[in-house]
Amino acid sequence: MLNIGVVGGTGYTGVELLRLLAVHPQVTVNRVTSRSQAGRQVSGLFPNLRGFVDIEFTEPDIDALAECDLVFFATPNGTAMQMTPALLDRGARVIDLAADFRIRDIAEWENWYGMQHACPQTVAQAVYGLPEMNREAIRSAQLVANPGCYPTAVTLGLLPLVEQGLVDDRRLIADAKSGVSGAGRGANTATLLCEASESFKAYAVDGHRHLPEIRQNLAQVAKHDVGLTFVPHLTPMIRGIEATLYAVLATPEAPDLHALYAQRYADEPFVDVLPVGNLPETRSVRGSNVCRMSVFRPQGSDTVVVSAVIDNLVKGAAGQAIQNMNLMLGLDETTGLAQPALLP
Amino acid sequence: MLNIGVVGGTGYTGVELLRLLAVHPQVTVNRVTSRSQAGRQVSGLFPNLRGFVDIEFTEPDIDALAECDLVFFATPNGTAMQMTPALLDRGARVIDLAADFRIRDIAEWENWYGMQHACPQTVAQAVYGLPEMNREAIRSAQLVANPGCYPTAVTLGLLPLVEQGLVDDRRLIADAKSGVSGAGRGANTATLLCEASESFKAYAVDGHRHLPEIRQNLAQVAKHDVGLTFVPHLTPMIRGIEATLYAVLATPEAPDLHALYAQRYADEPFVDVLPVGNLPETRSVRGSNVCRMSVFRPQGSDTVVVSAVIDNLVKGAAGQAIQNMNLMLGLDETTGLAQPALLP
Amino acid sequence: MLNIGVVGGTGYTGVELLRLLAVHPQVTVNRVTSRSQAGRQVSGLFPNLRGFVDIEFTEPDIDALAECDLVFFATPNGTAMQMTPALLDRGARVIDLAADFRIRDIAEWENWYGMQHACPQTVAQAVYGLPEMNREAIRSAQLVANPGCYPTAVTLGLLPLVEQGLVDDRRLIADAKSGVSGAGRGANTATLLCEASESFKAYAVDGHRHLPEIRQNLAQVAKHDVGLTFVPHLTPMIRGIEATLYAVLATPEAPDLHALYAQRYADEPFVDVLPVGNLPETRSVRGSNVCRMSVFRPQGSDTVVVSAVIDNLVKGAAGQAIQNMNLMLGLDETTGLAQPALLP
Amino acid sequence: MLNIGVVGGTGYTGVELLRLLAVHPQVTVNRVTSRSQAGRQVSGLFPNLRGFVDIEFTEPDIDALAECDLVFFATPNGTAMQMTPALLDRGARVIDLAADFRIRDIAEWENWYGMQHACPQTVAQAVYGLPEMNREAIRSAQLVANPGCYPTAVTLGLLPLVEQGLVDDRRLIADAKSGVSGAGRGANTATLLCEASESFKAYAVDGHRHLPEIRQNLAQVAKHDVGLTFVPHLTPMIRGIEATLYAVLATPEAPDLHALYAQRYADEPFVDVLPVGNLPETRSVRGSNVCRMSVFRPQGSDTVVVSAVIDNLVKGAAGQAIQNMNLMLGLDETTGLAQPALLP
Repeated sequence: MLNIGVVGGTGYTGVELLRLLAVHPQVTVNRVTSRSQAGRQVSGLFPNLRGFVDIEFTEPDIDALAECDLVFFATPNGTAMQMTPALLDRGARVIDLAADFRIRDIAEWENWYGMQHACPQTVAQAVYGLPEMNREAIRSAQLVANPGCYPTAVTLGLLPLVEQGLVDDRRLIADAKSGVSGAGRGANTATLLCEASESFKAYAVDGHRHLPEIRQNLAQVAKHDVGLTFVPHLTPMIRGIEATLYAVLATPEAPDLHALYAQRYADEPFVDVLPVGNLPETRSVRGSNVCRMSVFRPQGSDTVVVSAVIDNLVKGAAGQAIQNMNLMLGLDETTGLAQPALLP
Repeated sequence: MLNIGVVGGTGYTGVELLRLLAVHPQVTVNRVTSRSQAGRQVSGLFPNLRGFVDIEFTEPDIDALAECDLVFFATPNGTAMQMTPALLDRGARVIDLAADFRIRDIAEWENWYGMQHACPQTVAQAVYGLPEMNREAIRSAQLVANPGCYPTAVTLGLLPLVEQGLVDDRRLIADAKSGVSGAGRGANTATLLCEASESFKAYAVDGHRHLPEIRQNLAQVAKHDVGLTFVPHLTPMIRGIEATLYAVLATPEAPDLHALYAQRYADEPFVDVLPVGNLPETRSVRGSNVCRMSVFRPQGSDTVVVSAVIDNLVKGAAGQAIQNMNLMLGLDETTGLAQPALLP
Repeated sequence: MLNIGVVGGTGYTGVELLRLLAVHPQVTVNRVTSRSQAGRQVSGLFPNLRGFVDIEFTEPDIDALAECDLVFFATPNGTAMQMTPALLDRGARVIDLAADFRIRDIAEWENWYGMQHACPQTVAQAVYGLPEMNREAIRSAQLVANPGCYPTAVTLGLLPLVEQGLVDDRRLIADAKSGVSGAGRGANTATLLCEASESFKAYAVDGHRHLPEIRQNLAQVAKHDVGLTFVPHLTPMIRGIEATLYAVLATPEAPDLHALYAQRYADEPFVDVLPVGNLPETRSVRGSNVCRMSVFRPQGSDTVVVSAVIDNLVKGAAGQAIQNMNLMLGLDETTGLAQPALLP
Repeated sequence: MLNIGVVGGTGYTGVELLRLLAVHPQVTVNRVTSRSQAGRQVSGLFPNLRGFVDIEFTEPDIDALAECDLVFFATPNGTAMQMTPALLDRGARVIDLAADFRIRDIAEWENWYGMQHACPQTVAQAVYGLPEMNREAIRSAQLVANPGCYPTAVTLGLLPLVEQGLVDDRRLIADAKSGVSGAGRGANTATLLCEASESFKAYAVDGHRHLPEIRQNLAQVAKHDVGLTFVPHLTPMIRGIEATLYAVLATPEAPDLHALYAQRYADEPFVDVLPVGNLPETRSVRGSNVCRMSVFRPQGSDTVVVSAVIDNLVKGAAGQAIQNMNLMLGLDETTGLAQPALLP
C-alpha cells in the first residue's frame, strides 16, 4: 500500500478525497492535517467515515508529510504554495486541489487571487492536471495543479471544437451552473440553506477566478488567445455542475459533431458522450468521476450548443485528483474510481 | 365587485390565480370549473385557500361563464380555443393563460403544438398580453393571449437592446432556467421530487414551444426577423425563472446600457432594473409579479449579458394575467398585485 | 397611520415583519435599526422589499423609538431586556420576538439562556402573547413576550386535551420538526445548504430552550405541573414546523376529539381544525399566520395523536407578533394578516 | 461469478440493487426484467449505470430466471407471490424486496394489502431478512422476505429495549420520517417536486402497512404482543429515514442504555451506535448500508428516546437484500457493501 497525506481535510474536497481514498485498494491515508481540528477523530467531524477512517487530524508537519508517497492539498487558495517547495525538495509528489499552481502567468494569478505568489518559480514545473489534455505530462509530474471545477466542465465541453478550429473562438460563451458545495464548507450567510435553496442566480458576471484558467486551457489547445464570456450561476442543490456552451461555426460546412465528440473521447475512461439526442443531467454523475456531454446544432443553425455535466466534488475536484494520483504513481488510471453514480 | 370565472382551476396557474384573486379588492371569483373535480370544494384540493375560496368546482358551462365580467382559462393547450369563440360572441372578455392565441402564424402554431387550431380566425383578434409591449392594445382587448413564462423573461430582458438596434439580432442567445412548477401539476415521472431535485439539466435544446413565441415578440420590436438560440433548463426548485441573455453589440460604441434599461422601464410598475453591479436572484420575486434584471458588459467586451428573473407562476402566468385583467377592466394596473416577495 | 419601530431588522423574523407590515393598511414602519447595517438601504439587504420599504437601517436610539406607537424587537436573546425598561418608562408599547420575557421563573430563564437577566422585575409585567390563551390580557398589555415557534405549535396542539384534563399530562410527547429558518440568518456551518439539505436529524434531545416555555404554557392551562418529552428535529426546507403530539387518554371513555378541537377553536381566526381524516402539511400555511391541525386515535387505541403545522416565521414569529400588535393597538385582530399561503 | 436475476428493475429499489451489484466482486447480473421496458438498454433508463450494466431489460421468464443462483424481486406488492413458487420448485433462491412474504398471518396480510395471497403455503417457509434478528435462519433460507424500510429502522431502534424487557411495550411510539423515494418511482401527483419539496407532513396516521410488520417483529422479540403507535411522515428529501422512538421504562432503575445498545450491536457490521451525546443524521448513511442510532433519557426522565437513521433504499431495501444474498450464498456478509456514505 502506498502512503498518502492529505493537508486540510476539513472541507468538502477533503472529505470527498477521504471517501474515495477509503475504498482505493492500493493506497492508505496516513495523515490528515488540520490546524483547527488537530487531535479530533476525522470521523467525528465526518460521521460517514466511521469505520473507514480511524485516524485523528494532526498539525501539518513537513517532515511527516514528506514521508508520504504523495500529498494532496485540499486547502484554501494560498496555502499549498507555502509548503509545496519544501515537500518537492524532499522528493514528495504533490497534488494541489486549490488554485496555487494553475495559472502560469504569475501577474495574472496575483491579480485574480489578490495575493502575492509565494513560489513563482515552482509554478513553472507544475503540470495542469486535466488528463484529457495532459496525460503524459501528468504521469511524470512531481507537482500537479488539479483543475478547477468550472474549468474541467467547460474545457472538456469545448475541447473538440477548439482543437479542430471549427468555431469562432473569439466569442465563446460558457453559461455554467454549480451546486452550492462549490462554495465550500465555510460558514457564510450566502450559502445557508435559507439563502441558497429555492433560488437561482447568476454571480460574478464581471469576472470569476476560473475565467483565466479556462482561457489558458483553450488557448493552449487553439494555439492562440481565445475570447470567452463566462457566467457562473448558483443552483439550489449540493453537487453538480452543468455547463451550456455556445459557439458559432467558423464555416457553414461542419462535420458530424456528435461523431467528432464520440471519437475525440472514445478512449477516455471518464468522458461519456451520450447517444444522439440525449441530454445529460447532473445526477447521472453524482458521486462519480465521469463527465457526460452532448453536442447539438439547434434547428440546424450555425450556433453549436454543448451541454456537459460533472460532479464538482469528484471530476471537478477529488476524483480528478485521484485520477491524477493514479497516473503519477503508475497505477491503473481508473483504480478506486469505478463506481456508478448515486441515483436517485 | 366584478365577477370572475376561472376555467380549469386544478393546476398551478389555476391555484395561483385563485390565491391572488382572493385578495384582489375589486373582483370576486364566482366560478371555478374542472371536469375532473366538479362537486369538490376548491379548498379541499388546495388547503391554502381554506377560508378564502368557499365554492366548489363546477362543470364548465358557457352560459354561466358568459355572465362573468371576465373569464380566465388556466387549462392545457388546446382547451381555450374550443370555448373562446362562443364566449366572445356573448360579449365576455377572455384571458387565456395557455398558448392557444399566442402565435399569429397558424401553421407555425399547429406545427409546434401538434394539433389543428379550432378557431384560426379568432387568433387575429387576440392581443398578446405583455403590458410592457402592448399596454394600450390590452386595455381595449376582448381576448388576451397571456404570454408564456420563458417568453416573458426573455422578451423583457432583450427588449431595450433590440428596440434600439444595438445588438446583432441574428444570433441572440437565451440560456433560461426554470423551476419545476413550469412543468405543471400533472402526474409525471420526470417531475417527481426524486427525479428533479438535486439535479440540473438542459432540455428541449432542439426546439421548445416558447421559441417561436419569443422570436415573434422580438421580431415585432426589431421590425424584422431575428435569430435566437434558446436553451431551457430544469433547476431543482419550485418557482422561478432566470434567463441569462447574450448578444453581441452591433457597433463598438454603445451607450450606457444600465441607463438605457433604467430609462426604458422607469414607468413600468412590474419591471425593476437593479442598481449597477447587483444581480437578481429568483427568490427576490417569489410570489410577486415583478421582473428584476441587470445588464453587464463583462470585462468590457462587446458581448452584452443580461440576467432577468421572474416567478414563472406570477409574472410568468397568473400575476401577469391579473395585470392584464386590471387593464381590460379599467382598474389600476397594480391592484391586488402589490405584495413583496416571500423571502426567505 | 400608526408609527412602528423595528429593532434588529436583519434576521429572518425581521425581514418577515417588514414584509407583512409593508401591506398592513394602518401602520407605517418609521425606523428599522441595526448596528451592523446602519446607513444601508433596508431593501439593499432584502431585495424583495424594493418598492415597499424605502428607508435605511439606523442605529438604535431610545428617544426615536419611544416616539413610535409600538416597537418590535426582532433581536437575538438578551437584547430586548437591555432597552425595554427605558422604552416602557416613556410609555412605548413593546413586543419582543425573542425569549427575554417569556419565562416567568427568572432562575429557570437564566439557567436555560446562560445569562443574567437585565430586568427581572419587568418580566412580571409582560404578557405571553399567545392570543388563543391570553387574548384579553394582550389587549391591555404594554409589553408582550411573543411566543417561540415550537411552543406555539405544541401548545396550540395540546391545549384542548390539557384544558379538559382528558390525558395523562405527566408523560406528554412532542415530536417537532422545523425548517432551517428557525435557526436564523447567522453564518453557521450547520445550517449551510450543503449540511442541512437532503438530510434529517433530531437535535437537542437532552433539552431545548423551548421546553420550559411549553411546560409553563401547559401548566398554566392544566393548573399543575406537567411532564413533557420534547424532541426537535431539523427538516430540509426553509419554512414550516410540524409537531406530532402524543398523549395517553386518562380514561377509556373520551369525547369526540375532533368535535372538541373544532369547538375549542371555532372562533379563532388563525387556528384551523381540518375536516375529519385530513392531515395538515406545512406548505398549506407557508407565508400565512394560520395553525392547521388534526386529531386522531389511531386504530382506536388510547393514545391520542395530534398533528399541528405553522409557518415558524409567521404564526411562529412575525405574524403572531402583528396579531398581538393589532390587539394592543385596538385594531381588528386579522388586519394585514388575511392572505392565503403560497402553494406550491 | 454467481449469476443474479432481478425481476422488475425499473423502480428505485431496482436501480439501487443494480448500482450496488455492479461493484460486487463475486456476482454478475445476467437478467433484468421489465414488461414495460423489455428491449431497452437498462442504462438508457438509468444513465448512472452507463459503463456498468450493459444488458437490456427482458420479459420475465421463469426458466431463464431459475438458472440464476439467486433472484431478486424488486416489484410492486403482489408480483413476487405469482412467480416465487415456480422458482422455488426449480431450486432457485429468492429474495423479495416487496411485502409478499413478510407477514405470517395471511388474513392480516390480505387485510392490509387489499388482495388475496396467491401462495399462502409459501409464506411459512420464508425467512424474514433482518440479519440482526434472524442471521442463522437467513443463511439456510431458500426464500427471504426482505424487510420494509420503516420496519428496519424501527425494529433495530427498539430491539435492545424490548429484548431485555426494559420498557412498557404496550404503548411504544414510533415517529418516523422518510424521504420521498420511499414512495417509489411511479408517476404520482403527491410526490412531484412541487408537492413534496419545501413541505412536511404526517400521513397514514390511522394505519400504515408497515405497522403489522413492526408489531410482528417486536412481538417475536418480546415473546408476546406489543402495542405500538406508528406515525410516518414525508420529509422533503430523496433518501433517508429517521425514526424517533419513545418508550417508558418498566422500572425506575434501568441499566446504562448506551452501554446496552453498544453491546447488543457490537458485532453487527451494519449497525453503528454513536458515541454518547451524538445524534445521527440521515446524510451520514446516504448510499450506505449502515443503521446509525443513539439512545437518550432526556432530562433524566423515565421516557427513553431512540433516534435511528438508515438510507431507505439501502439498509431499508437494496443493501439489506444484498446483505441477505451474501448470507444465503455463503459469501462474506459485507461483500460489496463496504462503502462510506456520500457526504455532502
